[in-house]
Amino acid sequence: MKFEVTILGSSSATPVYNRNPTAQLLNCNEKFYLIDCGEGTQQQLIRFGIKANKIDFVFISHLHGDHYFGLIGLLSSLHLNGRIKPMKIFGPPALEEILALQFQHSETVIRYPIEFVATQADKPVQIFENADLTVETIILNHRIPCTGFKFVQKKRLRKLIIERLEADRVPVEYYPLLKRGADLDLPDGSTLLNADYTTDSERPRTYCYCSDTLMDERYFESIKGADLLYHEATFLQDMLERANQTHHTTALQAGQVAIATGAVKLLIGHFSSRYKALPPLLDEARTVFENTELALEGNTYSVP
Amino acid sequence: MKFEVTILGSSSATPVYNRNPTAQLLNCNEKFYLIDCGEGTQQQLIRFGIKANKIDFVFISHLHGDHYFGLIGLLSSLHLNGRIKPMKIFGPPALEEILALQFQHSETVIRYPIEFVATQADKPVQIFENADLTVETIILNHRIPCTGFKFVQKKRLRKLIIERLEADRVPVEYYPLLKRGADLDLPDGSTLLNADYTTDSERPRTYCYCSDTLMDERYFESIKGADLLYHEATFLQDMLERANQTHHTTALQAGQVAIATGAVKLLIGHFSSRYKALPPLLDEARTVFENTELALEGNTYSVP
Repeated sequence: MKFEVTILGSSSATPVYNRNPTAQLLNCNEKFYLIDCGEGTQQQLIRFGIKANKIDFVFISHLHGDHYFGLIGLLSSLHLNGRIKPMKIFGPPALEEILALQFQHSETVIRYPIEFVATQADKPVQIFENADLTVETIILNHRIPCTGFKFVQKKRLRKLIIERLEADRVPVEYYPLLKRGADLDLPDGSTLLNADYTTDSERPRTYCYCSDTLMDERYFESIKGADLLYHEATFLQDMLERANQTHHTTALQAGQVAIATGAVKLLIGHFSSRYKALPPLLDEARTVFENTELALEGNTYSVP
Repeated sequence: MKFEVTILGSSSATPVYNRNPTAQLLNCNEKFYLIDCGEGTQQQLIRFGIKANKIDFVFISHLHGDHYFGLIGLLSSLHLNGRIKPMKIFGPPALEEILALQFQHSETVIRYPIEFVATQADKPVQIFENADLTVETIILNHRIPCTGFKFVQKKRLRKLIIERLEADRVPVEYYPLLKRGADLDLPDGSTLLNADYTTDSERPRTYCYCSDTLMDERYFESIKGADLLYHEATFLQDMLERANQTHHTTALQAGQVAIATGAVKLLIGHFSSRYKALPPLLDEARTVFENTELALEGNTYSVP
């Protein structure tokens, strides 16, 4: 099952050096989840040849403009381009008012349903569930209320070994129980052992998105054991004081978070405009956590 | 004196084919006036190597998103990049509330003064004046209140012919009066004829910006005799019905407006996403008004 994230924006605060403010597109089993939506996200989607109408869910971490100024334009364009299927948006409570005010004054009545779900940045809760995954908030420590998002794939049903089932003439009405992992006692007194007829399904994987935050142990429990951890790394460690003042993280700290929480792989982004070249940030994170990559725009990273 | 406009965005409604929503930068005597500000305008400024901080005045025609969704991001970035000089914004009354709500929820206190001047779309009035020009609203006919803007250079003082003044030993204290065009009666009973010592200054020029509108004779008086007329031309004439429904103009009509109002030169823009190639729009406008050009992003057009 596809579980991968495409970077649409990797810049902090302002666009610079052809880097756009934060936005990511998560593809889980060909359903598309937009995570944050800085200005120009719809242009980035066009640039990378991604149809915006594939997105059915939007998750906004907080109301600093570099994480959401592109949302109103994206929603408007979907309307103008004839979208009719619903869109579900998760974000801080005031986001609904901000969107509504702008629709009101353009006299736009969006022709597809928008369901808005307000997030709270007080304690981690599950905010979404479908057949593929659940989404929980991660309570980050930023200057304004800010939540990350943890996308957890669901444990899938066991895979049937069809050739063996057919060879042994196991009736198809038993298949659903076998998929759920049961051994079957047959009317003739014999037993079908599940292990003979199924294999384990893919291990469910987890993607954690930590947008803007001070390094703070209080959210470590939430992101424990992430297969792919995206963590902001706005500064190099020599700017630690500035990072603390602005409630951001250094590349070194992002690596430390990855170690402390047992991540499999780390993706760093939200780069300050002071860094034209990004390799120093990567090198610094790798001094503590080797399996790190830069979140580069247009690149897609599979959740390992 | 420089009087020229650079196109930052030329698309209607949605970004498409690498065309951005509407924005223009007018340079009058090295003062910079931003006219409309679609999403991604700050990225376009970077792309074309223009420092956003040079802009001191913003004019927003109306509250359809393709004309203003980029403003909040531009203002935020100027703040983050350390601007301290004031910014003056002209636009529909609700724009102030929309900006304020977004600053409030990002807990941003903009560190440079923003002066907001509400425009009204009922009758044309002068809304701005400085040493170089005046700006008047143009009352357009769109689905929501919409004003264009007429930038009129001021008549400049006459130019002194310094060599002649010095040769005739005309005292410098007479210079200001001569610049203003006066003949001078001297104490000895003689007269200095202005025409002997000055030449006429540059003819004041006019730039008219008509963003989104039905062709409507009621605004013709406002834009009469424009040296450069920017007029939207969203559709070709075969889409006239659609243009009427959506309160837009065809390329043919834009040419007709230019003729009817005696424009010197016509610039057409606000192209519908249905047109990948733009020459057909240019050709159509030129069938009625030869001196027409396409508003192409990154290009600068001098007011003739």
